[in-house]
Amino acid sequence: MHSRTAFFVSDGTGITAEAFGNAILAQFDLSIRGIRLPFVDTIDKAHQAIRQINHTHEVEGKKPIVFTTLVNPALQELLRSHCKGMVMDMFGTFVHPLEGELGVKSHHRVGRFTDISKSKAYSNRMEAINYTLLHDDGQSNRDLSGADVILIGVSRSGKTPTSLYLAMQHGLKVANYPLIPEDFDRKRLPPALDDHRKKLFGLTIQPERLSEIRNERRPDSRYASLENCRYEVAEAEAMMRRAGVRWLSTTTKSIEEISTTILSDLRPQNLQNLSSFS
Amino acid sequence: MHSRTAFFVSDGTGITAEAFGNAILAQFDLSIRGIRLPFVDTIDKAHQAIRQINHTHEVEGKKPIVFTTLVNPALQELLRSHCKGMVMDMFGTFVHPLEGELGVKSHHRVGRFTDISKSKAYSNRMEAINYTLLHDDGQSNRDLSGADVILIGVSRSGKTPTSLYLAMQHGLKVANYPLIPEDFDRKRLPPALDDHRKKLFGLTIQPERLSEIRNERRPDSRYASLENCRYEVAEAEAMMRRAGVRWLSTTTKSIEEISTTILSDLRPQNLQNLSSFS
Repeated sequence: MHSRTAFFVSDGTGITAEAFGNAILAQFDLSIRGIRLPFVDTIDKAHQAIRQINHTHEVEGKKPIVFTTLVNPALQELLRSHCKGMVMDMFGTFVHPLEGELGVKSHHRVGRFTDISKSKAYSNRMEAINYTLLHDDGQSNRDLSGADVILIGVSRSGKTPTSLYLAMQHGLKVANYPLIPEDFDRKRLPPALDDHRKKLFGLTIQPERLSEIRNERRPDSRYASLENCRYEVAEAEAMMRRAGVRWLSTTTKSIEEISTTILSDLRPQNLQNLSSFS
Repeated sequence: MHSRTAFFVSDGTGITAEAFGNAILAQFDLSIRGIRLPFVDTIDKAHQAIRQINHTHEVEGKKPIVFTTLVNPALQELLRSHCKGMVMDMFGTFVHPLEGELGVKSHHRVGRFTDISKSKAYSNRMEAINYTLLHDDGQSNRDLSGADVILIGVSRSGKTPTSLYLAMQHGLKVANYPLIPEDFDRKRLPPALDDHRKKLFGLTIQPERLSEIRNERRPDSRYASLENCRYEVAEAEAMMRRAGVRWLSTTTKSIEEISTTILSDLRPQNLQNLSSFS
């Protein structure tokens, strides 16, 4: 049973309101039911959201927590005056002091992203996703010079999800290559990677965890056995050490943490964005 | 030339701080250079971040805008007292009033996500990504009953990126199926989908935009010609209408907007999460 309901109300997708609200709520030892209310961009939809919030208040007898990123001042005001939840107005709170510091008025415009699909950044992102899909799991050696990053590591060390995340969220073209028994026998990295040393980044993982993951796939196989996982991980790490490849352990990390670490280490400039918000 | 620098400072990845800060800054007609400073989780790293911010202040002669989600009160305080930027303390601002309403103290714990890789939600997400990759572009009819959503649409209407986003961010198993000339000749949906009508969601796109996108791939082909794009889109829309399949146009929408719309329409419960933050 949850102890409180939280709403994330936005005139857009509500993804930012939800991510931010969840990060705040994670600071409390409570079980929270979260409900995202996206595209609240008319008076009618605002009234509908208010009804839903007030209904929850009645049923639960506790104020719902309402995180909002509403941009439209009329809708902000409507929510503030009619809703019985505790309203955390994320935009209002910060936009006003910023107007003072920046010396310009905010334009309260919704839907800056409406035409994002035609922007250059957006088509780069699409291209990055396509590139990354074509270069998953060593499928293709073609155009490796076009890659921004090449991930290497044993099977099931986290290469595919990390590659897709970097492509989707950062527009990077990512190739990934499995390190396999043939490579360990030869005691060297796959020859296709020789010319791309600077782009390599390794993922490793604790053998115990790797064995668990592989056992979900192929129970009781030699592939999944702890003995084999220990062998593969030790060989892969030795190989990366010899080749001077940077690497990190994915064992206790989320995709977001792995990706941020790779970006910081390999291309710190990717944590910088020059965006024109006009 | 950018007119102001913004920093996003976090003891974690800084992804939330950046998304939120960018959403706020988008309300201003300014060109902003954004710099993410992740994993600021020690006094040393905080001092390093402060030096970088103050150096920017000196060079540019304007206060940098500093969005922070620091959880550690000692680091928050250090930043507030030593940094010459305008500090927007996203956590401090909202956590204190929430403590009052919720009647519990926040635990100021960093790294709640450290062991996320072992959680059930995380392994569902990994499984969803694997499922979605195996069921991209009609590759496999196996286990379609395991899909949460099946996207259909003409080639290059946005199915693959949307599928991957829904898998990665929402842990949904998504299959996608291209609608191709053979389907238009037969005037019916691919037979493999007959038993899964309720899960279908269609993506369509303006023929002019589709022709642009296809021309980047295969310039001057019949496939990319406006005439052919008009034919395919008209046939696909007619087919979806006859079959009673819900659909939306991706022409001016971001992946996030498309995904949120699909979730609202098909499975509103997916905008609800019951999370235990303990």
